[in-house]
Amino acid sequence: MQTFSLTLHGGAGAIRTEDMPDTLQTAYTQALQQALDAGYTILANGGTAMAAVKATILYLEDNILFNAGRGAVFTKKGLHELDAAIMNGKTLEAGAVAGVRNVRNPIELAERVMLHSGHVLLSGNGAIDFAIQQGIPLESDHYFFSQYRYDQWVAIRDSEFYQLDHKADTLMGKDKKLGTVGAVACDMQGNIAAGTSTGGMTNKKYGRIGDSPIIGCGTYANNNTCAISCTGHGEIFIRTVAAYDVSCLMEYKGFTLQQAMEEVVHHTLIKMGGEGGMIGADATGNTAWVFNTAGMYRARRNSEGLCEVKMFA
Amino acid sequence: MQTFSLTLHGGAGAIRTEDMPDTLQTAYTQALQQALDAGYTILANGGTAMAAVKATILYLEDNILFNAGRGAVFTKKGLHELDAAIMNGKTLEAGAVAGVRNVRNPIELAERVMLHSGHVLLSGNGAIDFAIQQGIPLESDHYFFSQYRYDQWVAIRDSEFYQLDHKADTLMGKDKKLGTVGAVACDMQGNIAAGTSTGGMTNKKYGRIGDSPIIGCGTYANNNTCAISCTGHGEIFIRTVAAYDVSCLMEYKGFTLQQAMEEVVHHTLIKMGGEGGMIGADATGNTAWVFNTAGMYRARRNSEGLCEVKMFA
Repeated sequence: MQTFSLTLHGGAGAIRTEDMPDTLQTAYTQALQQALDAGYTILANGGTAMAAVKATILYLEDNILFNAGRGAVFTKKGLHELDAAIMNGKTLEAGAVAGVRNVRNPIELAERVMLHSGHVLLSGNGAIDFAIQQGIPLESDHYFFSQYRYDQWVAIRDSEFYQLDHKADTLMGKDKKLGTVGAVACDMQGNIAAGTSTGGMTNKKYGRIGDSPIIGCGTYANNNTCAISCTGHGEIFIRTVAAYDVSCLMEYKGFTLQQAMEEVVHHTLIKMGGEGGMIGADATGNTAWVFNTAGMYRARRNSEGLCEVKMFA
Repeated sequence: MQTFSLTLHGGAGAIRTEDMPDTLQTAYTQALQQALDAGYTILANGGTAMAAVKATILYLEDNILFNAGRGAVFTKKGLHELDAAIMNGKTLEAGAVAGVRNVRNPIELAERVMLHSGHVLLSGNGAIDFAIQQGIPLESDHYFFSQYRYDQWVAIRDSEFYQLDHKADTLMGKDKKLGTVGAVACDMQGNIAAGTSTGGMTNKKYGRIGDSPIIGCGTYANNNTCAISCTGHGEIFIRTVAAYDVSCLMEYKGFTLQQAMEEVVHHTLIKMGGEGGMIGADATGNTAWVFNTAGMYRARRNSEGLCEVKMFA
């Protein structure tokens, strides 16, 4: 009997129980649980890993607590520029968008890119043209507004600082959180998939693209090895080709999913100062999460009875 | 004594002697030789692999024969949108730009991104803002115009076709050429580097980004393994994380540069219908070029006396 599983993250960073009011802990716990339910229900009903990953990320994009879709951080110019990617481990098909504005659900657009554009990665206004042609829902800038992200941005917008953090008072200091959401899944057919979505870094400028929409860096899936979604300091995840490195350690060195993720997160990334984490799945239903930060918003469930929602170490 | 080497490509595809007038063969041969000289002279004078890669690509970008910088293909909207990346194998630093307009030398901008932006990948208008701040030379749209590319575009602009080809009359048919330029080098200190620059596909739309500016896909360098620059059907090179796959086969399976490149180009890419090729260097001065198309514009020279300029199989 094939084990199926869903794992998700909502960003990694200095997530500590002592820094977080109980009400906020409760809000995050509920949101993570609901996102998990959204994806797991699909798997339990025989749906595909792709559909489960997408449903999970749609929920997280729509929830203002997370830095993706609604609730995304502000760029230097006071805008929201969103990145997302999705990859099908069965077919190695992939779709991604970078630097798109006003798209309600970038993960939906990423999937359309995969299915209907003939390309893998579309960017900027061109990607919006494609979204319009596809009839993807757009929203006004106001839809993406959250007071919390706005206050973060106001605190640093006149500086040259940018931050991966949820917190405005720390400027890349010890309390940073690395806001991105992602999901990986293994379905009843033993197919796996991965997806990632993010608003990037507060006060980012120059059309910066992080690792999330880059296949092999922030997102990767291959039935022969693993499905991976990353969150962290995107530049380092790009330079280490982090997600595909996990896959290669499994394929070429025979590492397990857990071993390969630990090697990349605790050794390769650390050596280059790359803070963050990742979630993983393989085609036998195994799940893993590894991070080198204080915490990571995360949840997982499988058909063997495992069910966890966690934030702290 | 450390062997040093420079290898470059100017695109792969249906490059056949019987299809190409002698005058054009002569023009390409001269251009490839001059690009080779530009980079090799730097190495012979003790310069770095990074400097040699950059000088080679600057020459190819400035030469109207190649689909990069001046001479770049036209997008669906009649524009030139340029992509480039450069990576330093010694430090694993990398810089890249995607979808930039009016930048005379995208490879120069990619290096500035690496050195001065704090990021790896900048895109679109944001990347132009950064170029202006850095004082990078911009050019009018007219600078990038070539009659040949214009005629290609006019022939298909009212269709939904796009092409990787230099030829307008074939519409992705058997005569396609995959226009991109790239260079890899190993210097006297045994440091390696890789760079790639392209105008992408004729009639591309929606802000499509190919593999060239994606670290791990079209461009990668690591002193421990290899420096790689790819040319071909970018979407497949992204989905296979082609450049980093070569590196992993060397690092994790003990393949030589040549073995690893043959595995990726003749097996992994072919299985997915991915036409194209790549050039490679390692830190002992070895060079390699592998392609699964009829030909590839290419040249290489090393300090042991090897010196080749080729186009056909």
